[in-house]
Amino acid sequence: MAVLTSVVTEVEAANLKYADTFTSADLPSPPSRKVLVVTCMDSRLDPAKALGLELGDAHVIRNAGGRAVEAMRSILISQQMLGTREIIVLHHTGCGMQKFSDSEFRSKVRKELNEDVDHMSFLPFSDLRQSVLDDVQLLKKSPLVLDVPITGYIYDVKTGLIEQV
Amino acid sequence: MAVLTSVVTEVEAANLKYADTFTSADLPSPPSRKVLVVTCMDSRLDPAKALGLELGDAHVIRNAGGRAVEAMRSILISQQMLGTREIIVLHHTGCGMQKFSDSEFRSKVRKELNEDVDHMSFLPFSDLRQSVLDDVQLLKKSPLVLDVPITGYIYDVKTGLIEQV
Repeated sequence: MAVLTSVVTEVEAANLKYADTFTSADLPSPPSRKVLVVTCMDSRLDPAKALGLELGDAHVIRNAGGRAVEAMRSILISQQMLGTREIIVLHHTGCGMQKFSDSEFRSKVRKELNEDVDHMSFLPFSDLRQSVLDDVQLLKKSPLVLDVPITGYIYDVKTGLIEQV
Repeated sequence: MAVLTSVVTEVEAANLKYADTFTSADLPSPPSRKVLVVTCMDSRLDPAKALGLELGDAHVIRNAGGRAVEAMRSILISQQMLGTREIIVLHHTGCGMQKFSDSEFRSKVRKELNEDVDHMSFLPFSDLRQSVLDDVQLLKKSPLVLDVPITGYIYDVKTGLIEQV
């Protein structure tokens, strides 16, 4: 199983340094600020830094686009098992999800991998603001989600600023 | 839409501070270190800090448990659209996913929300090490995932250390 890529070597060295000054041994499992963030996997976004979240503060769910529909399993667990009582939906400018359609991406996968993914939706969107509104509404209307504050934001990858939608 | 919880007020104030010293305006969308991390939403884990990832370095996918099967859509987009060529699977000690079974959680949701979620799998696991091995194998065997280095780790929430599985 030993993989020795440069990334693995660097990540393991960085982790040793991190653990050297680690002082958060006794944090409880339920997030102390009772908040759950649904956001994108994008490399230009560090949700903890951008939102001022410390270790132990919040659940952070990330997927391509920060799409709420795919986060439902995690949200149920977060609210029912670990007591979060607020949700932040955070999408961002320059998102890759605005650069393709489902049919284009399915064709690409068929061409590159010779695999049929016509049964999958890749959840792209054309309008960034609307994608935040849609995901906030999806959560507000879902009978699986508690009636808690849900706030939508756009993060600007060029400035680091968030704007409430 | 204006929600004024304490969390929202604090998060917006923290973000203003963050943006004040923001210097990463021109990062490209594809992750520079071509790596993708699949990990848990747990509040006690900051993947960027724990693995030494800087803004622009890596995609980070997070869900309850850090389960690979739910990350498949995002992994396809990450590899096919944004060029990542390495995967790290990172689960952690003390994970909430070890504390319930699917049938227990479905019963809880029925009791708390009066909703039937018997069609959903919540992807709990009993053996932490096995959950990492299972998720690494699932990715290695999937015809939808490129043949790239895939490394599994356990993060210890009490020490901050990662251990390769």
